[in-house]
This record gives sequence, C-alpha cells and structure tokens, in this order.
Amino acid sequence: MTQTAPSKRTQVGRLPKRGDYSKETIHGILDAAFLCHVGFVVDGQPFVIPTGYGRDGEILYIHGSAASRMLRNLEKGVDACVTVTLLDGIVLARAAFHHSMNYRSVVMLGTATLVEDAETKREALRIISEQIVPGRWDDVRLPNDQELKATTVLAFPIDEASAKVRTGPPADDEEDYGLDIWAGVLPLSLQPGTLIPDPRLKSGIDVVPTYRVGLQ
Amino acid sequence: MTQTAPSKRTQVGRLPKRGDYSKETIHGILDAAFLCHVGFVVDGQPFVIPTGYGRDGEILYIHGSAASRMLRNLEKGVDACVTVTLLDGIVLARAAFHHSMNYRSVVMLGTATLVEDAETKREALRIISEQIVPGRWDDVRLPNDQELKATTVLAFPIDEASAKVRTGPPADDEEDYGLDIWAGVLPLSLQPGTLIPDPRLKSGIDVVPTYRVGLQ
Repeated sequence: MTQTAPSKRTQVGRLPKRGDYSKETIHGILDAAFLCHVGFVVDGQPFVIPTGYGRDGEILYIHGSAASRMLRNLEKGVDACVTVTLLDGIVLARAAFHHSMNYRSVVMLGTATLVEDAETKREALRIISEQIVPGRWDDVRLPNDQELKATTVLAFPIDEASAKVRTGPPADDEEDYGLDIWAGVLPLSLQPGTLIPDPRLKSGIDVVPTYRVGLQ
Repeated sequence: MTQTAPSKRTQVGRLPKRGDYSKETIHGILDAAFLCHVGFVVDGQPFVIPTGYGRDGEILYIHGSAASRMLRNLEKGVDACVTVTLLDGIVLARAAFHHSMNYRSVVMLGTATLVEDAETKREALRIISEQIVPGRWDDVRLPNDQELKATTVLAFPIDEASAKVRTGPPADDEEDYGLDIWAGVLPLSLQPGTLIPDPRLKSGIDVVPTYRVGLQ
C-alpha cells in the first residue's frame, strides 16, 4: 500500500504490504464483524475485554452496564485501543516457518466519549443491535427509560485506525515447492447453527425468524 | 461460583456468577481455541493485537518475527493481558435490553518471558502448531536454525487468570414472557470450509489432508 498511516503509532510495522489505511477497507472490515476487543489501562496494567459494537460513519459504538469496570474506565477518556479481527483461514505452507493465517483486522486508537443525549443513545443501541442481528430491532420490546439509564453507551472514533489483511495461498521458500507436502488454505468462518427456541417460548409463536447474522 | 479469584484485578466484576477461576475451566477454554488478543502498553497507549498461541500446562506460548513490535515490547517483561474469546451464540431475548451473547472467555494478566533455549523453543513452536492444526507438525518441513533465529517465542504464565462464561437461553423480565416475540439462541461457531490447494501444489500430491482444526 502506498497510503499513509494516520499516525506513526498506527503504521503497520511487520509486513507493511499487509497494511491498509483506506476508509473503504477499514469500514468494510468493521461492517463484516460485530465483536471487538477493547484495550485499556488501569494502574499501568492493560486489560483486554471482548464486547459487541456497531459502526455509524466514523464512530464505533459500544455499550454495557453502567456498572461495568471497562466502561467506567473508558468514559473517563483514557487512551484505548479497539481491535476487530476476522479469521478467514489457516495457511498450510510446506515449511512450518511459513505457516500463517488469513485474516482481516482493524486496530483503532483513541479515547471514548460518553453518549449522554437520550435520543442519540437510543439510536446508538439500535445501531449496535442491527450490526449484530440485522432486523431484530423491529421485532423486540425496545428499551424503557429505566433500562436506558442502566446502560452506558460510548462513542469511539475510527479516525486513527489501520487495517491489516492477509489473503491467498502460502508463500514458501522456492526450494520447498518441490517437497512432497500438501499445501494450501483451510478456510474458516463463523457460521450460524440452527436456532434454539427458548424453553419458555410462548405457545403459538412458531414462526422462526430468519435473521442473517452479520458475520462475513 | 464460590471460588476465589487469583487476584483482585482478575476478579469478575459485572455478573460475578459468570466468573470461574478453576484450572479446569480456564484450561478447557484455552484448549478449545488458538487465537488470542494480546494487550500491552507503549508510552501510555494500549495496543491490542491478535495472534495464535499454544498451551503447555501453565504456560501459553506465542511467537512471531523477531522484528515484531509486539514481541519486542513484550519480551522486555512489560505488564500484559492475554484474552481468549470463543463466541458461541447470540441470545435473542424478548427485550432489546436483555439481548446478550453466549461465550467463553479467559483473561490472563502477567508478563512474558523470552524462550531462549533452542530445544524449548522448538518444542514451543510444535505446541503452537499442534494447537492450531493438530497433526500438521509431522507433515511439514521443520524450522532450520536460521528460521529458529528469526522467530521469537514468548512464554506467558496462566496463573493470574479468570474465565467468564455465559450459556443457555435468554433471561427476560417476567412480564415480557407473555409478549408475542420469538426468543431463543442462535448458535455460532467457527467452521472449517473445503481445503483450497495451493496453485503451485506439486503434481501427484492429491491426498488432501483431514486436519481437525482445533476450534470447539
């Protein structure tokens, strides 16, 4: 890539050809997933916590209980890192050394902002829900005021971000291509199974929804 | 859980009943995955980077290029956090507020140690490889001295760790169970696809391997 990283600290160091700083690539990866890992520091100790998210333009929304340690720390505006990883396959090279993974990842640096306005908060919750299970928001009982109050929503900027992508077959040393070893890629993807009805599902509700869960 | 967390900072705060500090649970989750997210701090800024791993007893091995920024920082012995997350499903409650995910995660705190001894290093690489694609190590060209030198292997202790697990159906408010809304769980799992042979696969190698990729 000839693009420029938005900052020195987001520049992909190892294998810079895998780095990509275009909005198109970054937004594409963020829209294909819904789970991120959030990194923040408390008393010098980093913590990495998984959570769902939703993207709206240049903002990534995350949410959780107002009592969450992670959110209470992040809403102070501490330096944070949000990473999204899609694992696409295992690269089986002829040499152990050249084994790899195919993946798409985005690393975002910045500080979160508390979403206080009730209308923006409701909209952010809708965006998170729609990113995880598109269509579900229209089917459910929406948050009441008490639930909204018990929920913290944070906005994280996507502007200082880098993507890293590996695709394609293994890259072995030239002399190893003659070896009698099978090589190629084992694709991996997060797949939905069969919906499991709640044991307390109300009788008469037998129309099983067909949500397309947003993992690509 | 009535078990005690190994430290205050690993104690599960939100929804403590989901916390589990037993070796059995922690090792079980670590053995069912092979991808972790590593958190470390550079100049006050946390970074979260995905990478593969292998477990051996109370040690988690990670590896990479000796030129990797992450590894060069970690081998200094800085405070780090390694998190492993298995996403098992989306919990579709009747209320938006009670939507959740089923998951198994482990958060480990500690500092990494550089593996310098060549024999231990080779064994660690075998352990990582076997965790990702069991059986592959016996089929490939093993690392030579030069490749071993270009690879950094770090050992991360699993002793200060906590697991967090959610399973089962949604938990709605009692008054919502009467609503005409479908509820249940959409299971999710990382599934292998069909092996894609390397375009440069040597002719005559038509026995496609049947690796069981270690994601459960």
